[in-house]
Amino acid sequence: MTPATTGTSVLAGGMPVEEFRRAAHEAVEWIADYLVNLRDYPVLAQVKPGDLSGQLPKAAPEQGEPVDAILEDFRRLILPGITHWNHPRFFAYFSITGSAPGILAELLCAALNVNGMLWKSSPAATELEQVALGWLRQWVGLPEEFFGIIYDTASVSTLHAIAAARELADPETRAEGASRNLVLYASEQAHSSVEKGAIALGVGQKNVRKIPVDASFRMRPDALGEAIRRDLSAGRKPFCVVATAGTTSTTSVDPVPEIAAIAREHSLWLHVDGAYGGSAAVIPEYRHVLDGAALADSVVINPHKWLLTPTDLSAFYTRRPEILRRAFSLVPEYLRTADDPRAVNLMDYGVQLGRRFRALKLWFVMRYFGRERMAAILRSHIELARQFAAWVEADERFELAAPVPLSVVCFRMKGPDEPNRRLLDAVNASGEVFLSHTVLNGRFVLRLAVGNVATGRADIETAWRRIQAEAATGS
Amino acid sequence: MTPATTGTSVLAGGMPVEEFRRAAHEAVEWIADYLVNLRDYPVLAQVKPGDLSGQLPKAAPEQGEPVDAILEDFRRLILPGITHWNHPRFFAYFSITGSAPGILAELLCAALNVNGMLWKSSPAATELEQVALGWLRQWVGLPEEFFGIIYDTASVSTLHAIAAARELADPETRAEGASRNLVLYASEQAHSSVEKGAIALGVGQKNVRKIPVDASFRMRPDALGEAIRRDLSAGRKPFCVVATAGTTSTTSVDPVPEIAAIAREHSLWLHVDGAYGGSAAVIPEYRHVLDGAALADSVVINPHKWLLTPTDLSAFYTRRPEILRRAFSLVPEYLRTADDPRAVNLMDYGVQLGRRFRALKLWFVMRYFGRERMAAILRSHIELARQFAAWVEADERFELAAPVPLSVVCFRMKGPDEPNRRLLDAVNASGEVFLSHTVLNGRFVLRLAVGNVATGRADIETAWRRIQAEAATGS
Repeated sequence: MTPATTGTSVLAGGMPVEEFRRAAHEAVEWIADYLVNLRDYPVLAQVKPGDLSGQLPKAAPEQGEPVDAILEDFRRLILPGITHWNHPRFFAYFSITGSAPGILAELLCAALNVNGMLWKSSPAATELEQVALGWLRQWVGLPEEFFGIIYDTASVSTLHAIAAARELADPETRAEGASRNLVLYASEQAHSSVEKGAIALGVGQKNVRKIPVDASFRMRPDALGEAIRRDLSAGRKPFCVVATAGTTSTTSVDPVPEIAAIAREHSLWLHVDGAYGGSAAVIPEYRHVLDGAALADSVVINPHKWLLTPTDLSAFYTRRPEILRRAFSLVPEYLRTADDPRAVNLMDYGVQLGRRFRALKLWFVMRYFGRERMAAILRSHIELARQFAAWVEADERFELAAPVPLSVVCFRMKGPDEPNRRLLDAVNASGEVFLSHTVLNGRFVLRLAVGNVATGRADIETAWRRIQAEAATGS
Repeated sequence: MTPATTGTSVLAGGMPVEEFRRAAHEAVEWIADYLVNLRDYPVLAQVKPGDLSGQLPKAAPEQGEPVDAILEDFRRLILPGITHWNHPRFFAYFSITGSAPGILAELLCAALNVNGMLWKSSPAATELEQVALGWLRQWVGLPEEFFGIIYDTASVSTLHAIAAARELADPETRAEGASRNLVLYASEQAHSSVEKGAIALGVGQKNVRKIPVDASFRMRPDALGEAIRRDLSAGRKPFCVVATAGTTSTTSVDPVPEIAAIAREHSLWLHVDGAYGGSAAVIPEYRHVLDGAALADSVVINPHKWLLTPTDLSAFYTRRPEILRRAFSLVPEYLRTADDPRAVNLMDYGVQLGRRFRALKLWFVMRYFGRERMAAILRSHIELARQFAAWVEADERFELAAPVPLSVVCFRMKGPDEPNRRLLDAVNASGEVFLSHTVLNGRFVLRLAVGNVATGRADIETAWRRIQAEAATGS
């Protein structure tokens, strides 16, 4: 018999089933209230380092505890240390949403607890991943020949893109090890994961060329072409270029069609990082965000960023799945299955063997919202950002620091950096809103990112009023 | 105002809150029943490739749908395609558990939807990760100087171990790219992720030495020493050895103390892959499973394998966190925070920037079960495996194919492979149990792995009866 501290109760996942029902229903009620009342919480945790760890026992628990005690500590100890990413006034980094249908799917996913490494190890997980990624591909207008696979994060998607690029350019790497001769290109505004991926893969940080951008922070194709020619003259081997559709600092969109032409000319793998911006292509009048992506070898879009899907879920597309597979397939005997071309084994396409059933939440979210409402929500985020930018422009103390192509506004008080730093700290310390920062052209810049399903006009009004008030105090 | 198709309802995560409450309570009731009645489901999905995808619309949804319709399709379409990893008669690969406290924590995690990339971006996520991993370190008896970090999978943990080893051995790799001169060692029974990690990092598949094993499938230290000396004579640079505490095929435990001595002699990074077996150290009389791990540079233990934690959660420990950080830290301006040594930014220690709040489920699971009950559960799994092995040995048609140090039994019908393959297929087709296979000494072998919290003696009796019956039919 299963050991249990609980006598003769019927157990569900190791817990008396009535205890599980009660605790889970209580958690559901708490979550419903939490989601409705999020505005009552400070967005940014108002704690100091060590505040939580100082309150928790140093010694690991010998005896089990009732679930009620754990839930109580969750509310009493954990919550005050949470920065509320699901808060409608979370405007930092990229604003995201753990939406209600996504939460339901994660609950079911945890209960099923499947590992979709092989088709056989959970057929529905593999097939739903293909179907849901096919739907998303249609929503953003990518061609049908793109094969889709879910990774955990865009950093991992980008690492796989670079690895596939290397497999194509230098197939002996797999057996012999990396060459130090390969060169990768991305703009100086590209995400740090491009450089980190190149470091991890053994391409080398020095072999990443950061191509200059124009006044709108978009990669300059002329500078890209020049860098490639310089490397070729020096006997180096250009192999990959990463273009970004929606950079992290300013959401600028690189001129992908021109970059694609250069990539084709020099036989480079073109990866389009649309982790944030790619989602905007769901809006018909913003489909241009992915202009040229159809010409890419791979594209990443993160539904956990701007498609209301709880973290983590990064959608990776490639028109060359056989190259990705050649880079990563390694099947030990205990995972060998009969070959069936319709039964794809997704573990063959990446570093990770274990695969959560992430497709379930994407399928729930896409079906629950549908494309029209999803587009309306994203459009509203862009409109809110535009509105905020207009207020910034109308206040002579402030200036915009970059164009606002999507749902992020980069702005600052005119003049030196230091008052801007103090402004950001004061605004965030209020707990009312949470903004982050970046540096553009050597100057400290505040960033307001809109992306939560519950964010409305009143929320950005609150942000703007708080910013104005703190600016007045600080000046 | 937030766009909504729902008129004036109060929204929670984009859904009318009453709809969310109703659907989530319904999901909870379904899960409770599911966990109690899992034995009524076929363990292995009884479907053919395309069965699910053929039933789903090819076109992505334009209009949103009520959540009830999605939940209904989950039950009607998805479930038949699920291989039930949470089933008490799931005996394939490694048997795992999405336990009740873990499910509750995943539900809360999805609602909070935090990203713990920086301490500031959710202090409680970072601090709870340190505390929970400290507790686990105590449970398995690792020294206090080990720093812990959670990755998604053991494959990723192992990749990070090898990357840190490389950073220590060849620090110029980060800037210049990988050298083709480094050599890595693991036994021929090591997990495929070791080789895959070496391929991804640009170490090269040919630079992975697969060290022979003894009759009990344990790495032979003499053969390791010899391989290292051979490589040194050839001018190569040995840099890392991966020892396994609980190999995937047979759960054999490499002689880590001897391997550690060799690693020290040659200044190799020693990584101990205890992804499955390390958990057994929670049982006092099995602490020897991690003998020598205290001497390692890094150790991985997967709570999502044998510590009742829903997938994914891999616990990585290293006594050299500064090396790991040197290999991976790359902080873009928009993520720069004030330095505070107590506020560790976990994104500095790996490829992934985004980090789910995985520590929450480990904390829930450890507190709910406590060490004593956890040890009792794991002990019962080992006892069940021993019992099963005794039945195998008592039946003259069968033989054990490997020792049974932990909770996995490798066995076969005496004689040729083909009847064994047919036996496995017939047993799995029954839906009553799900076993997997491996190959040992060139022969096809069946594997029965025990690891689900609900598995009891009746379940392995069912397995053995079914195996005996199919063996009788097939012979």
